[in-house]
Amino acid sequence: MSTNTTTAEDRLAALGIHLPEAPAPFGAYVPAVQTGNLLFLSGMLATKGHKAAIVGVVGKDVDGEAGREAAHMAALNALALIKKQLGSLNRVSRVVRLGVYIAATPESTEHVTIADAASELFRDVLGEDTISSRLVIGVASLPLGSPVELEVVLEVKP
Amino acid sequence: MSTNTTTAEDRLAALGIHLPEAPAPFGAYVPAVQTGNLLFLSGMLATKGHKAAIVGVVGKDVDGEAGREAAHMAALNALALIKKQLGSLNRVSRVVRLGVYIAATPESTEHVTIADAASELFRDVLGEDTISSRLVIGVASLPLGSPVELEVVLEVKP
Amino acid sequence: MSTNTTTAEDRLAALGIHLPEAPAPFGAYVPAVQTGNLLFLSGMLATKGHKAAIVGVVGKDVDGEAGREAAHMAALNALALIKKQLGSLNRVSRVVRLGVYIAATPESTEHVTIADAASELFRDVLGEDTISSRLVIGVASLPLGSPVELEVVLEVKP
Repeated sequence: MSTNTTTAEDRLAALGIHLPEAPAPFGAYVPAVQTGNLLFLSGMLATKGHKAAIVGVVGKDVDGEAGREAAHMAALNALALIKKQLGSLNRVSRVVRLGVYIAATPESTEHVTIADAASELFRDVLGEDTISSRLVIGVASLPLGSPVELEVVLEVKP
Repeated sequence: MSTNTTTAEDRLAALGIHLPEAPAPFGAYVPAVQTGNLLFLSGMLATKGHKAAIVGVVGKDVDGEAGREAAHMAALNALALIKKQLGSLNRVSRVVRLGVYIAATPESTEHVTIADAASELFRDVLGEDTISSRLVIGVASLPLGSPVELEVVLEVKP
Repeated sequence: MSTNTTTAEDRLAALGIHLPEAPAPFGAYVPAVQTGNLLFLSGMLATKGHKAAIVGVVGKDVDGEAGREAAHMAALNALALIKKQLGSLNRVSRVVRLGVYIAATPESTEHVTIADAASELFRDVLGEDTISSRLVIGVASLPLGSPVELEVVLEVKP
């Protein structure tokens, strides 16, 4: 399926992806803020139904495959939130910045593979022409014990 | 006091908050950069008078309460810097992004509570309608040994 | 040489700096995304020719001087990428945000000195009037084992 002739919503349906409920905040912040045509999402975690669904530090408690699952789950949460904020995924013109924070040991070497699990879902749903710049960082710990947190900045159509 | 009928400067006065001197840079950078109507602050630390005021890693050297104090102090520094840059806190229309970096052990679980200390000060002073998107990350270490560093991006009125 | 009467390309030549090849992505992302007049670069590492050139955690595997070399190398890669994206370094009007992520032990105290190695190269080449806001964070690990990763957001001339 060409990403040029289909829309993000078409691709989501064709991939058989059912989006979860958009994550609600865990503290004194809002899920997303739009300024001009830029939409800044709050940090997306590996959560389901306001609870941590995957917990642990990569290289200590969980392996790289669990890290990829966590990145995929956080990216699904991001898509759900984008849809809730914008009404339709078709309104995304570009993923400007994807930051992937991975709770990982200093010895970890799977940063790129784990981050790709989020990037690949965004590419498959939002389209090749929306692919982001990216920052991948291995950190000490993340909220709720999530192995992955995503920073997302989007350019949206009016 | 409703945040709808008062200004940020009114609320600051009503809360009896005396802002510190705006932090000066510790290296080869400037305190803040405005591009269009977005103001990017440099990382705000738990400093007073160009010196670290609270030092340590949360969960090892200091507890969560000290983490909250550090977040509050960094947020006060941010308000002082915003006022210096813009002339008045009333010129903030939105806190677009608040990033809260916490020097914490891998076992730490107080991320949200610590970050809320910064978010709550911003909300109480800048107003409910300016509340930010947020990113909270537990990291290995921060400049000057600060337990907390804030990333702040604001939308400002002309 | 005044930075007021010369251009970034002039200064680059006068400093005898030969830029490396711009880094290609290591995963499913693009090197940079421009939205409006803001250019977001992907994370720049201490790489040469698509390989890690300096590896290790500051304070454990490498010292602060190696950290400064890594920051300088990542900043050179950023300049190469900016030139490739924009055609000329002269099109940079401002470095809006420089984020310096340093893989460092919790005991590390050289954050500012290491980050300055990147800031100083940007200042010397792009000019005093482009100096950025800055965020410096000590993290657990970075892609490819790089001691430093740079986040760069630029304001560009049309």
